[in-house]
This record gives sequence, structure tokens and C-alpha cells, in this order.
Amino acid sequence: MDTLLITVLVPVAGLIALGYAALRARWVQQQPAGTETMVEIATNIALGARAFLRREYRVLAVFVLSLAALLAIANLQDRVLDGEVVSSPMIAVSFLVGALCSGLAGFIGMRVATRANVRTTNAARTGLGPALQVAFSGGLVMGLSVVGLGVLGLGGLFLAYDNLTTWTDARVINVIAGFSLGASSIALFARVGGGIYTKAADVGADLAGKVYEGIPEDDPRNPATIADNVGDNVGDVAGMGADLFESYVGSIIGTMVLGTGFFVAFDETFALAAVLLPLVLAAVGIIVSILGSLLVRVREGGNPQKGLNAGEFGASFVMVVVAFFVIRWMLPASWTATTPIVGTFDYTSMGVFGAVTIGLFAGVLIGLVTEYFTSTTNKPTLSIARQSVTGAATNIIAGMGVGMYSVGIPALILAGAIIGAFEVAGLYGIAIAAVGMLSVTGIQLAVDAYGPISDNAGGIAEMAHLPAEVRGRTDKLDAVGNTTAAIGKGFAIGSAALTALALFAAFMQQAGLEAINVARPRILAGLLIGAALPYVFSAMAMNAVGRASADMIREVGRQFREIPGLREGTARAEYATCVDISTAAAIREMIAPGLMAIAVPVIVGFVDKDMLGGLLVGVTVSGVLFAIFQSNAGGAWDNAKKRIESGIEIDGTSLGKGSDAHKAAVVGDTVGDPFKDTSGPSLNILIKLIAVVALVIAPLIA
Amino acid sequence: MDTLLITVLVPVAGLIALGYAALRARWVQQQPAGTETMVEIATNIALGARAFLRREYRVLAVFVLSLAALLAIANLQDRVLDGEVVSSPMIAVSFLVGALCSGLAGFIGMRVATRANVRTTNAARTGLGPALQVAFSGGLVMGLSVVGLGVLGLGGLFLAYDNLTTWTDARVINVIAGFSLGASSIALFARVGGGIYTKAADVGADLAGKVYEGIPEDDPRNPATIADNVGDNVGDVAGMGADLFESYVGSIIGTMVLGTGFFVAFDETFALAAVLLPLVLAAVGIIVSILGSLLVRVREGGNPQKGLNAGEFGASFVMVVVAFFVIRWMLPASWTATTPIVGTFDYTSMGVFGAVTIGLFAGVLIGLVTEYFTSTTNKPTLSIARQSVTGAATNIIAGMGVGMYSVGIPALILAGAIIGAFEVAGLYGIAIAAVGMLSVTGIQLAVDAYGPISDNAGGIAEMAHLPAEVRGRTDKLDAVGNTTAAIGKGFAIGSAALTALALFAAFMQQAGLEAINVARPRILAGLLIGAALPYVFSAMAMNAVGRASADMIREVGRQFREIPGLREGTARAEYATCVDISTAAAIREMIAPGLMAIAVPVIVGFVDKDMLGGLLVGVTVSGVLFAIFQSNAGGAWDNAKKRIESGIEIDGTSLGKGSDAHKAAVVGDTVGDPFKDTSGPSLNILIKLIAVVALVIAPLIA
Repeated sequence: MDTLLITVLVPVAGLIALGYAALRARWVQQQPAGTETMVEIATNIALGARAFLRREYRVLAVFVLSLAALLAIANLQDRVLDGEVVSSPMIAVSFLVGALCSGLAGFIGMRVATRANVRTTNAARTGLGPALQVAFSGGLVMGLSVVGLGVLGLGGLFLAYDNLTTWTDARVINVIAGFSLGASSIALFARVGGGIYTKAADVGADLAGKVYEGIPEDDPRNPATIADNVGDNVGDVAGMGADLFESYVGSIIGTMVLGTGFFVAFDETFALAAVLLPLVLAAVGIIVSILGSLLVRVREGGNPQKGLNAGEFGASFVMVVVAFFVIRWMLPASWTATTPIVGTFDYTSMGVFGAVTIGLFAGVLIGLVTEYFTSTTNKPTLSIARQSVTGAATNIIAGMGVGMYSVGIPALILAGAIIGAFEVAGLYGIAIAAVGMLSVTGIQLAVDAYGPISDNAGGIAEMAHLPAEVRGRTDKLDAVGNTTAAIGKGFAIGSAALTALALFAAFMQQAGLEAINVARPRILAGLLIGAALPYVFSAMAMNAVGRASADMIREVGRQFREIPGLREGTARAEYATCVDISTAAAIREMIAPGLMAIAVPVIVGFVDKDMLGGLLVGVTVSGVLFAIFQSNAGGAWDNAKKRIESGIEIDGTSLGKGSDAHKAAVVGDTVGDPFKDTSGPSLNILIKLIAVVALVIAPLIA
Repeated sequence: MDTLLITVLVPVAGLIALGYAALRARWVQQQPAGTETMVEIATNIALGARAFLRREYRVLAVFVLSLAALLAIANLQDRVLDGEVVSSPMIAVSFLVGALCSGLAGFIGMRVATRANVRTTNAARTGLGPALQVAFSGGLVMGLSVVGLGVLGLGGLFLAYDNLTTWTDARVINVIAGFSLGASSIALFARVGGGIYTKAADVGADLAGKVYEGIPEDDPRNPATIADNVGDNVGDVAGMGADLFESYVGSIIGTMVLGTGFFVAFDETFALAAVLLPLVLAAVGIIVSILGSLLVRVREGGNPQKGLNAGEFGASFVMVVVAFFVIRWMLPASWTATTPIVGTFDYTSMGVFGAVTIGLFAGVLIGLVTEYFTSTTNKPTLSIARQSVTGAATNIIAGMGVGMYSVGIPALILAGAIIGAFEVAGLYGIAIAAVGMLSVTGIQLAVDAYGPISDNAGGIAEMAHLPAEVRGRTDKLDAVGNTTAAIGKGFAIGSAALTALALFAAFMQQAGLEAINVARPRILAGLLIGAALPYVFSAMAMNAVGRASADMIREVGRQFREIPGLREGTARAEYATCVDISTAAAIREMIAPGLMAIAVPVIVGFVDKDMLGGLLVGVTVSGVLFAIFQSNAGGAWDNAKKRIESGIEIDGTSLGKGSDAHKAAVVGDTVGDPFKDTSGPSLNILIKLIAVVALVIAPLIA
């Protein structure tokens, strides 16, 4: 195994991803954008998205630079462990590179998405197949940017530190961990801020439009409609991308840290094998994702879902096969190592392969369970639809029930994955399982980001008053987008959980914790406080959406009162003020939860590192379950409404748009919006961020 | 310290409680019941309540006898620990006595409550003071029955086993633990089944009456109105009573078990001191509660809250003083003991006193926080009222936000109490803190049960068309009841948490666990599964309410269609069928969650006792937080609605009954009903039941 060759080839895979992404982006850009109205609408959305990003990045720059300075200062003094220096102020550089890579991925993804949307609409004028190609290509650019920049950044830093310094490998990896913190910082803003933005706009547009003015949310007369469409890009494209970027690099770094535990056990040839394996799997996953993307197509009248499934499941399958050979090539067939937490353990390369496979399967399984609980064709949404007949209250109660119930099986899957991965490869197994789950993030994220692009495309078709058949095609794409979004959300939560555990295991190793005994009251108290954090964090996000959407509703009301001719469609709405309201709210409201997420683990960690261990367990377990609950309840409400709109019959009464049951279902859907798109997903960030903060301060509190 | 004297005096305190309860019950019974209509309504409620109890107890009898047989069989073979037999099939007898005591307390409480309700209404015809006396006396009978039967049962069993057998003290206490399981079994049915009953009836009466037929829920023409009133007794009196009975005996038994750890450290004189202390504190608490009850009075035009506070806080204060002397008398000033989990620890009697005080204060504090988040006069409910202006969806979002947010401070209080109690007195400190919190359960429960009695009284006044001033007085009592209910719920959750921890600590000792290291994947997996249980359990309860209330709504609709003259008030509604629907649903729907709560810890425990340890931690932490979230969200929605009804002004618009904001608030209130009265409180039972099951099977898996 040639370490130098590998460390050079890894960044090359990143460059390949970016190169292919650039090709696809150019192709999207070359597609015609359609009529003048369409271009105008799309320009408004793109301008709104850019305005948000600009303001967000301005705040972020201050935040990131301050944190970088703090990191550098805290690490000015060398920390020594077992006679070796393990720290360096260069961690601030890793941090900045991580933040930059994540920010850049979000910028690229959003830029392409806001071009792909209108081009998807235009392609839908000729057929379903071309429309799918444009939308999916837009998503693929996001997906490949994320994995490309992740691998390039991490691999590049490793190459640089390993060859330009005289540091020990352990020190290199400690310093690289800052990259993950950078990614988390951006994710916090992109996911939480983006989530607040998108739902403030969505809830505002929905309520103000439908309920008060009798105007649909996609109607060009609705002043909040552009903000709503911007929100899809801000939250579901950039936010989701930053979330998975964080998981992606977090799982890799967690595994690299744990891989250092094998230095003693490995001879010269294999020395860095376990450290580099996650990077190599990620690099290989990029190639597999690109191959998978070639399988995504659909014929006119066909089901786009099949095309996307072919790409996604095809890539997963190929990944398992390729991982087998990569692992057999890189790792020794068997070795015995003694690490502080696991003790003495007999590892095998096939055990590690088993863990990777477990991770991949667990991700797919959690996605499928999510789909079961939220899809329009299964029992759970039917039960909500049925209970909508007796009003909004019973609709809400039913949705809560579905959300709570849906937590059980994913918990069992995760529990099984944890036990299984540990049995075959110790703590390293749990971490590499997370890498396995995330190895095909390139195509997974492409499928995720395809959803909001199609959603936007439909909105543009509506606003531009295109013929019904065009809207029909975009609706078809959009319906599939809802399913992929559900699966993607399950996947995001599952990967966040495993990533947090990987980082947690790495933290324990770095902080020198041998056990986290919850029979000790301080640890139990830490666990309790940690478990309460997701509630408080979610509350902050929910309240932010509540406040911001109320502002939005008031603004829409004002415009209808003060702009003569707006209701009749003769005057233009002031879209920009609505975009401003969402932007300002998102940036204002993400400060407090963000500070909490960073300050709490630091304070607790310096008080008592064992207590921080308890806190990490608490926040991870509670956060994952609360996120699944919120995400699935939200998804189920959404699709219960869609199910009623499609015109079902319940107890002999046929329901449909405009029925009382539909009105009740709209309430459920609106409640579910912040659940599934703001507070729920923001917990993915919370659990990873707290874990990575703990990992970064580990050498300081060890 | 004379052990025999103490073990005789403890049951005597129980007899005093029961004697005083009998006096108060007779006094209530002697009050006039009012007009013929009032008597008729009250009889219907009493008959409905009795019908429910009869059917519930029939199912319970089968359940309890089967479980008793299983327990006896599982313990036929003697388990030997350190050369001593620690088990006996007589545990089945303890179990039966525990179930019997809890069942009897529920029966007495409900019987008196269904007499006190109409007599409260009648007393309200003369004045506020007399009405308070009747309602509070009814509650006091419940409170004193619970503590009386708890102390009598536990103390009596101890006296019997200690004097009639040749068992070691450790064996006596192991066998007595069955009492707690008996109490938990009844609590499961009373709290979960009762919760389903009451909310199926309440939601059904509300929605069917108000929304579909335009008839208020308390209107005699509403067929579900009697079921609704029965539900108050079934859920809020009997259910709450069984819940606190379980906490009361669970905390005492947990402490007794941990007290056995001091046998080696104590000399002959003190041998049983730490084991008997919780019983003595409970016995003394009974006398203090009776004294406190004498302070409860109110003048015409005064605030009943002040009277109740005087009794409750007065009792708590006196209890602290008395506990000081009791502990100084019973325990040695200081001793050193080595126990498996804590290791070697220097204990002091004043440390134990400190833990008791911490428990009492933590209970009061959690109650006050609950009140802050749910009372009509504070910011949280105002924010919900404000967001009701834009509709039901924003009302729900706001309520969720309040509920989630409210979890933070109680988590900190509990974390502080755990650390504090441990610092001063080890694990024994945590357990005795729970006993301290629960020592004045007698008066606490009296205040709790006073609420539903007043609620019923108001309902009867409405149904019997009594003059406005009577309804005015019952409303005043009822409003205070809502506050006491909120505090009581916080107290119930807090005490459930500490009790579960006390039982958990006892389980660890009995199962021979020295540490629960969550860095070990099996334990982490157990924790994850445990943390998911409250979600699934809540879902089952929510869905049960959803289904049963839908049945109720259909039945009300049927009666209005098929009974000529019902709407006009010339024909009588068929109340009994509605009572039947709720009863049948409650009994049918509690089977599955009940079996789950018992089967899961047994299965996990026999697979891996360490994993069961993780499961206990997970279910306790997650259950407490999820319960607080649900309880407080529900309470806040309820009072936000009340706040709007009282006629507030928001942004220049004045709201009130019938406004759009009020309609939105009614939706929130209806959603909150099962949250705060079914799924939320049922988690108190879940966490204690799982802990006590673990404790009971501990000798079998050790």
C-alpha cells in the first residue's frame, strides 16, 4: 500500500467530481429557459436566493473568523499527550478550509438549482424525460460538489500536513478535525437558518394567500410567492447539502481518529491503512455515484421514481462490491489491537467490510421505513386522512400518533446497526459504518436536491400560466420528489446519528475517557441535560418560524391593502420585501440556538469531561428520536393532505380539494411544515455539531 | 431505636389516615345533594363511573391473578445470593396486596368524588367557602386513602414477614418489592385506561357537541356529556391517585432496598434504620398532611388558591422541620459504608436530611415552572393566544414551541437534584429525595383531586340550569383547579422521575451491576430502544383516543339523527351508550401498551442485564422529557383558550368567545387534551413500571 499514491489519488477523485459537476452545470446552463415571463420569475427567485446567501455569508464570515481566532488562540500552547505534541494553531486553518468548502458547495448547488428550475419547466413543455434530465442534473451538481469539495478539502489538507510538516500522524489528524467543525458551523447556519427561511415563507405564503386573501400560494399576485420559491432552494438544496456535507466529513474524520488506534498493531506497510480507508471509500464512492447517475432516465408516460431508484440502488449495490475489494486490498486480513475503550479485540478486514455493508443497509432501511410512514399509498397517511373528516384537531392528533409511532423501527434498526458493527469491528466498525452509509452521498444528494428543483419548476409553470400538460409533467416530477425527500430525510437523520456516534467514539479516545458510566450521577445529569437540548433547540426553531411567518402574513395583508390593483392582477406585488422579511428573520433567529449549541458542550466539557460524555449520549439519542418524530409527522401530514386532494372516499363520503376534511388537512400540513423542514432537520446539525465541538476541545480537556 | 415499635407504629399511621378519611367521607355524604335534577345527573355520573370501575377491575382481576401466578412460579426455586436465600414465591402475595391496596384507594377516591361533586354544586348555592370545603374534603379522602393504604400495606407486610418468618432482612425487602409491582399494574390500567376513557369522552363530547351539532359539551342534550363527567373522575381522580400511589410506594421500596446496603456498616442498634426511614417519613408525612388540610379555607369573595396554598406549602414547611428531627433520631450522626456502585462513601444523617429537603424543593420548583408555562397570566399562554389570530395552524405551532421550551428548566432542576442528593448521601440520597418529594402526597393529592371534583360541580350546575352566581362560584373553584392540576402534573412527572431513578438504583444493586457504561454498544443500543419506548407508548395512547373519540362522535351523531326531540330538549339522550363506548375503548386499548411495558424489560433483561440497565436509563430520561413536553403543551393550549375566552385585546382587535382566534384556540385545546391527560401522564407509569419490573426480576437475572 503506497501511502503517497493514495493521498494523491484521493484529492484527484474530488477533482473528478468537481469536473463532472462543471460539465453537467454547463449543460444545464445551455438549456433554453423558456418564455419571457418564465425568465422573469426565475430571475426573481435567483436574485432572492443570492440575496439571502450574500447576507447569510456576511454574518457567517464574522462568525467563522471569530471562531477561527478563538481556535488558534486556544491552541497556541502545544498540548502534549504521551510525550508527543498533538495540537497546533493550524487547526484554525483546517476550520477555515472546512467552512469555505461547505460554503462553496452550498453556493454552487444553489446557483445551479436556481437555473435548473426554470429550465426544467421549459423542458417539461416538450416531455417528461428531458424535464427529469434537467432537474436531476441540477441535483447532481449539488451532490457532486458536496462530495467533491469534501474529499478534496480533507484529502488536500492531509496531503499538505503530512508532507509539509514534521508532525506525527496523530497530530495531523487532530489538526484536520477542525475541518469538520468548519463544516458544522456552515451547516448550522445553512440548515437552521435555511429551515427558518423556507418555512417562514411557506407558512406565510400559504396562510396569507389561501386563508385570508383566497389566493393560492403559487399565484403571482401572492407577494410571498417568490420568497416561498427561494425558500425551497435555501432550505432544501443548500440546507440539505450542508447537512450531508457535515455528516460526510464528520464520519470520515471520526473514523480517521479511531484509525489512529491501530498504529501500534499495524506494521510499516499498513501503518495508515485504517486512517486512510474512509477517505478511499469516499473517493471510490464518488466514481460509483457518477456511474449511478448515468442510469437515471425515464420515458414519456413512465415513472421517474424508477429511474431515480435505478441510479440510487444501483450505486449502493456497486458500492458494496467495490468496497469489498478496496478493503481487502487496503487492510491486513486480520490483526489484534488494544484500544482504551474496546480493550483487546481481534479485527479482520472482512469484519470492517461487514460494518460498511451494515451502514449502507441501515441507511436504505431507515429510508424505506420513512417512506412507509409518509407515502400517500400506505396506511398511516390514510388514517390521518380518515381522521381529518372530524376536523383539524383529530387530524393533528392522528399525525402526532403516526410521528410518534414511526420512531420505533428506526430506533431498532440503529440499535441493531450499532451492535452489529461493533461485534464485527469494534468502535472503528461503528464509525466506518457511518462512512459506508454516506459513501454514495453524491447520488443520494442528487436525488434529494432534484425534489425542490422540481417543486420550483411546478411553481414557475403555475405562475407563468403554462398549459395544464406542462404542469401535469412537473407535478409528476414533484410527487416523486416528495417521496425522495422523505427517504432523504430518513437518510439524513440516520447518517447524522451514526456520524455523531463516530465523532463521540473519537471524542472518548481523544479525551481519554475509558467508560461513560451513567450510574454516576454527574454523567446521568449530563445525559438528562443533553436529552433536553433537542427540545429547547426545536422550540427556538419553531418559535422563530411562528414569529417570522406572522410578520410575513402581516406584510402580505399590507400589500393587498395598500397596492391598488394587486388583487385584480393589474399591479405587481412587492416580492422583495417578503424576501427581506424571511432573510432577516432567518439570520436573526439562528444566532441564539447556534450559540447554545456551541457554548453548552464547551462549558460542560471544561467543568467535567465525563459529564460531557453523558451529554453527548443524551443529545444524540434524544435528538435522533425527536427528529424522526417531527420529520415523519410532518411528512405524513403533507401527504395525507395530498391524498385527500387526489379525491378519496371515506365511509361513503368522497373528499377532495375544498372539502372540510381538506381544510382540516391543510392545518395539519401547515403545522407539519416547520416540523419536517425546520426543527426536525435542525436536530441533525445539533447532534453532530455538539459532538464535533467535543472532539475539537478533547485535547484541551483530556 | 426500637425496630418493633417503629414497625408497629407505621401501620398505625396508615390506620389514622384511613380513619380520618372515613370521617371526612361521612361528612361529605351528610351534606345535602340539592334538587332532584342535580341528584339525577349526579347519579348518572356515579353509575357511569362505577360501571367503568367494575369492568376495569374485572379485566384487572384476570391480569393480576395471571401475573401473580407467573411471579409465584418464577420464584418457586429459591435464588441464593452470597449464601443467603433472597427470594420467595410469597412475592406473589406482596404483589396481590399491592394491587388490592391501589385498587381499593381508587375505588374509595372515586366513590367519594362522585358524591362530593354534586354536593359541591349544592354548597355553591350558599357560598364559596362551603363549596371549597366539600370539594377539598372529597379530594382529601382520595389523598389520605392513597397514603393510608400505601403505608398500611407496606408497613403491614413488613411487620408480617419480619415477625412471622425466619427470613433475612434482605429477603424480606426483596419479597416486599412485589407490592410495588402490584401498585404499578393497577396504575397502568387506571392511568392509561383512565386517560383514554376521559379524553375519548372529552374530545368526543366537545367535537360532536360544539362543532357538529352546535351544542356545548355540558349541555344535557349532548349524549356524551355524562361520559365526559365520568371521565373527569376516572382519569383525573382514580388515574392520578393510582399514579401517585405507585410513586409513593415505589420510592419507599427503592429506598428500603438501597438501605440494605448499610447493614454491614451499622451496628445492632441502627441495623434497620436506613431501611425503615422512608416508611417513618411517609408515616409522619401523613400526620403533617392532615394538619395541613386544616389550614385550607376561603372566605366569600376570597381566592381559593390561597387556602390551598396555605395547606400545601404549610405542610411542606412543617415536613422539613419534622424530617430534621426524625432523621437525627433514627440515623447515626455519621457512618462509612462500601456499596457496589457508590464505592466507599462517608454518610451523615444531616446529608440524608439534605437529600430529603432537596427532593421536597425540587418537587415544588418543578410544579412552579409548570405553572409558569401553563398559567393564564404569563407570557407563554399569551404568545399562543397571539398566534391564534392567524389560525389553528399557528396556534398549534406556538403551543408545540411552548411545550418544547418548557422542558429545559425541569431538566436542569432534576439534574441538579440528582447531583445534589448524590453528593450529600450517595445513591441512597437520590432515593430518599424521592421519598422527601412524596412525603406530603396526602395533601398534594387532595389538592389535585379537588380540581376534577370542582370541574364536575360546574358541569352539574350547567346541566341543572342553576343560577349564574352558582356557576360563577364553581367556575372560580374550577379555575383554581386548573392551576393546581398543572402543578400536580409537574409534581407527578418529577416524582415519577425520581422514583424511577430510586428503583433503577435498587435494580442495579440487586442485579449486581457495578456500572452502566454507555460506551459499550449493547448498553447504548438498550438506551436507544428505551428512549424510543415513550414515543411508541404515547402513539398507542394517542391513536386510542383518536379512534375512540371518532366512535363517540359517530354515536352522538346517530342519537341526534335517530332520537326525535333530542335537539329540542324534549327527549332524553342515551347517556349509557356513550359511557359504554368510552369504557370499552379504554379497556380494549390499554392491553397492547400494557403488555409492551411489561414484556420489553423482561425480554431485554433475560437477554442481557447490562442492556436492561441502558434501557432503564433511556426510558426514564426520554420519558420524563417527553411527558413534560406533552403535559405543558396541553396545559398551555388549554389556558390560551381560556385567556381568549376571558376577552383579551391583541394588536387592537379584541378577541373573545366565538372569534376566529377562539375557534383556532379550541383546536389547540382539543389537541392538547390527549397530550396532557392521556399520553403525557401515561409516561409516568411507563417509566416506573419498567423500572419496577426490572427490580422484581433482578434476583432472577443477577
